Amino acid sequence: MPSDQLSATFAALADPTRRAILSRLTSGEASVTELAEPFDMSLPAVTKHLKVLQRAGLISQSREAQWRPCRLRARPMREAAEWMEPYRAHWEQRLDRLDDYLRESSARPAPRTRKKR
Amino acid sequence: MPSDQLSATFAALADPTRRAILSRLTSGEASVTELAEPFDMSLPAVTKHLKVLQRAGLISQSREAQWRPCRLRARPMREAAEWMEPYRAHWEQRLDRLDDYLRESSARPAPRTRKKR
Repeated sequence: MPSDQLSATFAALADPTRRAILSRLTSGEASVTELAEPFDMSLPAVTKHLKVLQRAGLISQSREAQWRPCRLRARPMREAAEWMEPYRAHWEQRLDRLDDYLRESSARPAPRTRKKR
Repeated sequence: MPSDQLSATFAALADPTRRAILSRLTSGEASVTELAEPFDMSLPAVTKHLKVLQRAGLISQSREAQWRPCRLRARPMREAAEWMEPYRAHWEQRLDRLDDYLRESSARPAPRTRKKR
């Protein structure tokens, strides 16, 4: 388990089952059995995923009700989204592709020179 | 290594060294030696991190120049940011609730009323 919160958040999100669990919790709290239902997985395996999410602070489990419902805690994702924000310019302005284009066109023999021949 | 792109992206971001490497690359391409410089880490350890980033498609390494510069590829982060988008309402709503609470609790003792007495 990573020691810093941001690493813990990203690590918790790096699994399709855990992301599906979080997605299910957007429509309201659910018991462990309810959360396990859609997955072809043992209850202990699902519980293990829930523990990762809980340690990352992405879900909480109530101690009040006997069925101990799980609840979404989206707050840690805020830091993750904020961390990605400065990179938005790169993917939106397609700076990656611009880089490629500039490299390719400077690597190729200059077209103007060819025309002069 | 996770098999789906989204898991690979999140897993690659789940490490402070890898995030620092990406951050360094926002200011332009860099050689492996340059990237390793700020870290108290062996070159093979840094190379291992670079391989994780490369497999996730977050960096690319040029084969043209002899110093084989690494370059940022932010595109995979787009999918990650899009995945988090539906949760934004949750973390922002929580802030709204906190705002409401703070507003209510500061309104309750009504300092102005007291002054008027």
